[in-house]
Amino acid sequence: MNGNFIINIGRQLGSGGREIGEKLATRMGIGFYDKELIQLASEESGLCCEFFERADEKASQGIIGGLLGMRFPFVGDGAIPVTNCLSNDALFKVQSDVIRKLAEEKSCLFVGRCADYILRDNPRCVNVFISCSNEERIRRLCQIHSISEHVAEEMMNKADKKRAEYYNYYSYKKWGAAETYHLCIDSSVLGIDATVDFVEEFAKRKLGI
Amino acid sequence: MNGNFIINIGRQLGSGGREIGEKLATRMGIGFYDKELIQLASEESGLCCEFFERADEKASQGIIGGLLGMRFPFVGDGAIPVTNCLSNDALFKVQSDVIRKLAEEKSCLFVGRCADYILRDNPRCVNVFISCSNEERIRRLCQIHSISEHVAEEMMNKADKKRAEYYNYYSYKKWGAAETYHLCIDSSVLGIDATVDFVEEFAKRKLGI
Repeated sequence: MNGNFIINIGRQLGSGGREIGEKLATRMGIGFYDKELIQLASEESGLCCEFFERADEKASQGIIGGLLGMRFPFVGDGAIPVTNCLSNDALFKVQSDVIRKLAEEKSCLFVGRCADYILRDNPRCVNVFISCSNEERIRRLCQIHSISEHVAEEMMNKADKKRAEYYNYYSYKKWGAAETYHLCIDSSVLGIDATVDFVEEFAKRKLGI
Repeated sequence: MNGNFIINIGRQLGSGGREIGEKLATRMGIGFYDKELIQLASEESGLCCEFFERADEKASQGIIGGLLGMRFPFVGDGAIPVTNCLSNDALFKVQSDVIRKLAEEKSCLFVGRCADYILRDNPRCVNVFISCSNEERIRRLCQIHSISEHVAEEMMNKADKKRAEYYNYYSYKKWGAAETYHLCIDSSVLGIDATVDFVEEFAKRKLGI
């Protein structure tokens, strides 16, 4: 593991979390992985990108697993049963392996995808959550997607629900809860660039670099 | 309101939140109010301190209010009905008035007691939540109260539940959720003093001072 470190960023849709992550990774000179993980998981597994896109940050549909509150049983062991090879759980396993492999090779910044939980045994992780005022999130989503405020609000609520379901299904922690992360910050308070500064300072202090 | 500002600190039991608040208030030269609010509310109302102590950060027992999800109806208007004058809701009203009065008079730091929600219309508020790893919380509680780890863990879980119930009952936000606060920080990452530094920097940047 040597001097490598990892920054994991959870984020509300429209919070600017991806942009903050990109800027932070560039500034710290480390790899940046958000949607890029889909391409890598596809290459690693030989499965079509489309499967990963469809399953991206979606909890498994498995009724038994959901009812019993079971977590994904394959993480950390090995083989993916052939019969399950296109289930969300199996795709999660492939993506988890990609995340772990990258984290072993070099310093990285991961956005979403339970990376903080997947790498929970790595003491050189800094786990951050980016929230944002609803007004600012709606404003940003309207601007990016050229949609109405009403549509932006719906999109925002659906995405939060989906991300929380995904995270809460695959991890033992709670998405968006302060106690899940080392640092949570509302990006509308200081704005994107000053939030990048602030998260960078925190990460450096935690890591002693 | 002039140049006054307010720092509100929510905190998990055993997180060091009170200590962080005290040190921060001293450093910034502002009033510090935690349990002190009980004494002030007692003086203000002429009611015995004991009533406030018993109700401290406890949600109302009112079944109808609880079932219908009603919030305290007196906030912001005026009179406390005599028949209710010792209910938790009425005591909350007295305490809220004390918090609002203090915030009008001078810069303050409030610990807990929904102060962030009570002062939600004040743009010069910095709302912070202090979390902490369970190991460190238990260690701190054992040390302070000379109790076993098991007892500390029970105390911790009960206090979190009580604080969440109180906050969620009286406010429209969620206790301990990242999106409720401007900044959430795990005090076990940097330690108490460096966390004070960090929160102070954030507050100064937010307030432009």
